[in-house]
Amino acid sequence: MDYVNGPGRNHLFVPGPVNIPDQIIRAMNRNNEDYRSPAIPAMTKILLEDVKKIFKTESGTPFLIPTTGTGAWESALTNTLSPGDRIVSFLIGQFSLLWIDQQQRLNFNVDVIESEWGQGANLDILASKLAEDTAHTIKAICIVHNETATGVTNNLATVRKILDHYNHPALFVVDGVSSICALDFRMDEWGVDVALTGSQKALSLPTGIGIVCASPKALEASKTAKSVRVFFDWKDYLKFYKLGTYWPYTPSIHLLYGLRAALDLIFEEGLENVFARHARLAKATRLAMEAWGLKNCTQKEEWYSDTVTAVLVPPNIDSSEIVRRAWKRYNLSLGLGLNKVAGKVFRIGHLGNLNELQLLGCLAGVEMVLKDVGYPVKLGSGVGAACAYLQNTTPLIPSRI
Amino acid sequence: MDYVNGPGRNHLFVPGPVNIPDQIIRAMNRNNEDYRSPAIPAMTKILLEDVKKIFKTESGTPFLIPTTGTGAWESALTNTLSPGDRIVSFLIGQFSLLWIDQQQRLNFNVDVIESEWGQGANLDILASKLAEDTAHTIKAICIVHNETATGVTNNLATVRKILDHYNHPALFVVDGVSSICALDFRMDEWGVDVALTGSQKALSLPTGIGIVCASPKALEASKTAKSVRVFFDWKDYLKFYKLGTYWPYTPSIHLLYGLRAALDLIFEEGLENVFARHARLAKATRLAMEAWGLKNCTQKEEWYSDTVTAVLVPPNIDSSEIVRRAWKRYNLSLGLGLNKVAGKVFRIGHLGNLNELQLLGCLAGVEMVLKDVGYPVKLGSGVGAACAYLQNTTPLIPSRI
Amino acid sequence: MDYVNGPGRNHLFVPGPVNIPDQIIRAMNRNNEDYRSPAIPAMTKILLEDVKKIFKTESGTPFLIPTTGTGAWESALTNTLSPGDRIVSFLIGQFSLLWIDQQQRLNFNVDVIESEWGQGANLDILASKLAEDTAHTIKAICIVHNETATGVTNNLATVRKILDHYNHPALFVVDGVSSICALDFRMDEWGVDVALTGSQKALSLPTGIGIVCASPKALEASKTAKSVRVFFDWKDYLKFYKLGTYWPYTPSIHLLYGLRAALDLIFEEGLENVFARHARLAKATRLAMEAWGLKNCTQKEEWYSDTVTAVLVPPNIDSSEIVRRAWKRYNLSLGLGLNKVAGKVFRIGHLGNLNELQLLGCLAGVEMVLKDVGYPVKLGSGVGAACAYLQNTTPLIPSRI
Amino acid sequence: MDYVNGPGRNHLFVPGPVNIPDQIIRAMNRNNEDYRSPAIPAMTKILLEDVKKIFKTESGTPFLIPTTGTGAWESALTNTLSPGDRIVSFLIGQFSLLWIDQQQRLNFNVDVIESEWGQGANLDILASKLAEDTAHTIKAICIVHNETATGVTNNLATVRKILDHYNHPALFVVDGVSSICALDFRMDEWGVDVALTGSQKALSLPTGIGIVCASPKALEASKTAKSVRVFFDWKDYLKFYKLGTYWPYTPSIHLLYGLRAALDLIFEEGLENVFARHARLAKATRLAMEAWGLKNCTQKEEWYSDTVTAVLVPPNIDSSEIVRRAWKRYNLSLGLGLNKVAGKVFRIGHLGNLNELQLLGCLAGVEMVLKDVGYPVKLGSGVGAACAYLQNTTPLIPSRI
Repeated sequence: MDYVNGPGRNHLFVPGPVNIPDQIIRAMNRNNEDYRSPAIPAMTKILLEDVKKIFKTESGTPFLIPTTGTGAWESALTNTLSPGDRIVSFLIGQFSLLWIDQQQRLNFNVDVIESEWGQGANLDILASKLAEDTAHTIKAICIVHNETATGVTNNLATVRKILDHYNHPALFVVDGVSSICALDFRMDEWGVDVALTGSQKALSLPTGIGIVCASPKALEASKTAKSVRVFFDWKDYLKFYKLGTYWPYTPSIHLLYGLRAALDLIFEEGLENVFARHARLAKATRLAMEAWGLKNCTQKEEWYSDTVTAVLVPPNIDSSEIVRRAWKRYNLSLGLGLNKVAGKVFRIGHLGNLNELQLLGCLAGVEMVLKDVGYPVKLGSGVGAACAYLQNTTPLIPSRI
Repeated sequence: MDYVNGPGRNHLFVPGPVNIPDQIIRAMNRNNEDYRSPAIPAMTKILLEDVKKIFKTESGTPFLIPTTGTGAWESALTNTLSPGDRIVSFLIGQFSLLWIDQQQRLNFNVDVIESEWGQGANLDILASKLAEDTAHTIKAICIVHNETATGVTNNLATVRKILDHYNHPALFVVDGVSSICALDFRMDEWGVDVALTGSQKALSLPTGIGIVCASPKALEASKTAKSVRVFFDWKDYLKFYKLGTYWPYTPSIHLLYGLRAALDLIFEEGLENVFARHARLAKATRLAMEAWGLKNCTQKEEWYSDTVTAVLVPPNIDSSEIVRRAWKRYNLSLGLGLNKVAGKVFRIGHLGNLNELQLLGCLAGVEMVLKDVGYPVKLGSGVGAACAYLQNTTPLIPSRI
Repeated sequence: MDYVNGPGRNHLFVPGPVNIPDQIIRAMNRNNEDYRSPAIPAMTKILLEDVKKIFKTESGTPFLIPTTGTGAWESALTNTLSPGDRIVSFLIGQFSLLWIDQQQRLNFNVDVIESEWGQGANLDILASKLAEDTAHTIKAICIVHNETATGVTNNLATVRKILDHYNHPALFVVDGVSSICALDFRMDEWGVDVALTGSQKALSLPTGIGIVCASPKALEASKTAKSVRVFFDWKDYLKFYKLGTYWPYTPSIHLLYGLRAALDLIFEEGLENVFARHARLAKATRLAMEAWGLKNCTQKEEWYSDTVTAVLVPPNIDSSEIVRRAWKRYNLSLGLGLNKVAGKVFRIGHLGNLNELQLLGCLAGVEMVLKDVGYPVKLGSGVGAACAYLQNTTPLIPSRI
Repeated sequence: MDYVNGPGRNHLFVPGPVNIPDQIIRAMNRNNEDYRSPAIPAMTKILLEDVKKIFKTESGTPFLIPTTGTGAWESALTNTLSPGDRIVSFLIGQFSLLWIDQQQRLNFNVDVIESEWGQGANLDILASKLAEDTAHTIKAICIVHNETATGVTNNLATVRKILDHYNHPALFVVDGVSSICALDFRMDEWGVDVALTGSQKALSLPTGIGIVCASPKALEASKTAKSVRVFFDWKDYLKFYKLGTYWPYTPSIHLLYGLRAALDLIFEEGLENVFARHARLAKATRLAMEAWGLKNCTQKEEWYSDTVTAVLVPPNIDSSEIVRRAWKRYNLSLGLGLNKVAGKVFRIGHLGNLNELQLLGCLAGVEMVLKDVGYPVKLGSGVGAACAYLQNTTPLIPSRI
């Protein structure tokens, strides 16, 4: 079963789950423990404080829910909203689509603002909707910070500006699954009310913790929100926070230790350095793409994502074949094009605990696969372009200076 | 942080999370993978077939949900029932209490049959309720197979007999969290409609998979059940089962590999041998308890649990002090008494991948703690009684004969 | 292959290799590294300083040789002695026998002082030999601190007193394989010239580092010692120590990280507390043995070993059968009787990172095995006796007070 | 301490220790065991059979010595030769130099045939020496299969032909440290008498096993060889082979389990496929080097090594600065130039469990470092040249076809 990996390492460049650094793998290499002993609450207490730093919040309250991003979505929505509530949501790709599907199935009245896939959220329409909504029927704005399917990053600061401009009280709910810990995210500054991420993304952990962070306003809303919820209910967590035992049900001890190690790595590197590294690797990826003569699925530079690049392939090429072949021949895992962009894009995830040479190995692999499927790439062109940028910009490793 | 464990190993005898054998720890010691590659679906396919064996079902459909037991409960209920549905539920201890709380918060009309803590489910009352319910207003019977708080095992075969006797169509929904893989569980034979367990119990994995298994009748019910659900919705799983990709959202790769290893260990030992081992260790524990002159919280032998023993302490002793001291002095983790039995019982979990000498180390520790807190135990008495039984009954390790 | 372990953990009570705590297993769970990068020398430098603490030496020079105890012996001898050199060596059990065999094969002129197995080194004879040796023909005294085969601890302070009494310049060479880090060892105070141990003993690591520590006098001797050596030659190490690169050939990166973790654990517990714990567990073991009505192979209390107890069985019982059966039925690994005491003793190793309940599980297992082989033991008697002592003497775990 | 690694993975391209695949890391993630139980001998027996396959021998006898390559050298020599014996040895680089140093210190009469570093062993001189040696004073020919310092592979088949031509009975002793399991090695066909390797090279394990394989003729020689030896003595191993317990002293349980996993990986890939992969990656490396306009330290194609490439840098560049900078800036570990070629070459190790994209990441890193140090490389040129070759020649991963 293991040998499915082929000789050498698997090169994991899907936009999540991402590579887990050895330090985290080590931290999780352990037996279970009694989560009711004093040890786990003591660790949890510090984790909850530390996890706020990756949201850049001081007033927020985080929840480490044993679930996935989909569950984190559900927790964000059901704790703050009631069935029938009108919410504005942006459809710009597969993951915002899935979230909207969830919003509709949870019986919210979803006002969808759709953009062409490859574009960011249409904030002009948001502005006009808010302008019209003097009765404040809109209860929440739901937006993905980074649409993983198309590599589009939305401008959350602008969303806040628009809300403020109209002095609109709608909750500001953000899916930060493929952004938080990789892209600058400023919960307090941007007045985000609920933000969430998943452990298997930029935190570089296995799947299994949905991290949801609620502003005081969101916590207040949770007291009256009528959506039915139990597993995802913040109330139970808050009750146990007060008791100092922290867990309404069994947490994953392993992921808590893993999260500890993940945060240690991030703080040691420095959150801003982590963002800069993501920006650097993303830029290098785009330069390679351009050198190959391929286009970004993301239509404007302002939306370029620093965590995932969706590369458009020419019409005569099936991007799924690129992904299949990368895996079959070069042990390279790339992201498929999903739904509307299936067959049209492949995705390079460049998030998490990753460095320059790992990315360059991936880019070299992409070049070879492109040639494999008949695209006339000049081998070395993309890697060369990426190297030219990285050789100029990569800092020395701080601990080795 | 790690040193919190003291010299030597932690002796983990809470009734979950339980000890993880090294084989499973090894299997999970790995990087993430792309769950959309062919490898993970191929593994999932076999896992879903194999997991049915631990439920003893051929017609059931299992779901490996990235959640805890609480989430598995919610999945079982929301997929099969609609708000307002009348269900019969048994309150016999803290975990059935929590489940009933969930049932009520999910807006079911819960008909609670309460027993004294330490007694099993009152099936006579069930019978009378079913007898009266000729209109079939009862949509489901919800019962814990094994109440972890009091060490009470309910007789599920009898529940089925009563349902059959009255020819009642209610769904038979079973919490097997602290039973499945440790106590004999016969989903098909007993006509259980939904059964569930959690990875951190007898499967000896970390927390993180809620395993729910649905009978054809339960699947049918899920088509019309009106409870709001998305994350826990079986429909999404079934859709991806059909597509052969299996996962509606990101699974925990690590727990899948861990589950593979866990099932391999169980099948290698033989499921019936696993049950026999649990019975043997449980009997030894009860013999020790009797030798100490202490009573079982479980009031009758027919309800004795083979996965957890709740030991009653004399009124002058606080059982929480026993648990605290065991951890502080002997690195022994025992289960607290919860809620109604707080301070009155401590619990010895004897489930999962465990052997005789591990248990005897625990029992020796309990003896010393009893003495520590002033209970006049004859040191060696409990271990001696347990040894007398185990020395007669422990088989040779098959691979070493 | 793995399943050879049976359900639950293997109970490892041979006197080495011993149980590896999870903290060390985690530390070694890693990829290789370039040992010529600055990282490994930096780590080595600190390790060499820290390792001196377990020898209680400030003036000694340690060598971390990628070998076993047998190799460490060879390194100690060949670096300090020349073929034909007269050395005094004590034959008191299988390991001293093997060392003497090595000494003879290395062409030293070995003056063997033999004791009955179960007795300590005969220091009276040593004294008389030194008294006679006014010409200082004796170049070295070689002695095991703790004879692992018989559970005999020699009194090294007395050896030093005798040497001093006769003002004899012989090198004092000590095998501390089953003592260092478990029994108090005072290299500087006792004027030991070469001391050595192996990683798989009280340090609780895998096999693979032979740790040899040389006094200034021993280093001086190494400059003229004519024994042929290359792999084991200290000279090469010293050359690379000076260069600051530390390694004349490739070290085991994994064991260095493991050693770091091992020392951290020992220093965190406190070396004196580690000794006290070993004394406590050893005393408990002897009390159990006495309760079973069995005798210590070690004939006098002054020689009782705190790391291993060799238990004499009655003539009608084959101790090898006890060891076989313990492994086959209870997953308990005990030490065989070796050579002269084969069939007559079995050994309980109680060294390394071990705690009370682990030992008590072992003792319970021994009781059952004794009964299995027909010895009329009262089950619970040994564990009870051990518990009585441990319940009085075990301190609270410092980090949990 | 761990953070010394920087963000992302360390790119380990020294010619040993090499990258350990996850499968092997997992296999070694375990507690110690009693090596005297039946389990370890059973595993050892199969390992000894399987390890013969990597030497391509049926008549050879392997020894798994807990030591390094330096110790394996010593074992090969001291078991087959006596002090004063005349041996012919080839000095072609740092590792052959170190071996000759050992040979001299072990008191053999070493007849050194020196070549310029970058050239292979001068077999013409060997031929003339053998021609002259009608008295058969030459007892052994010692040769490195692959000189790791210069990337030179010697032609062992020719050595055998020359020996046969002169019908010379000298033992044929081969250092296969950086060749076996990576380059085709045919012990039986080539009539090699002693061959040896180290675990940390192409087997992709940690350091710690020196594997020595002896022909029947070598075993016969060992009966009369007078070199002093104990730890390295084959006699002790053979004695325990016969007893079926296999180990004269404590082995490293962990490395045995690791070796099992390593052999499983190699056999699953197929030994010939492993060789082909090494040839492919080596060729790609050389093509990159040529594209950079740099020269191979190895002077003729017939000597090109498929496990390590020593790249000559222009006189104005210090190759050590390349190695330092690669590590400091790109987390890339390259091999230093050693001794005579210090400052003049850097080495790329491309051996062990490695694949195309790992190597390409390394090559991209080398390009950037070259630019860093002022060498006018066209970024992308080397990677492009390597890709052009690899894209044509890399097979599909068999398990994924």
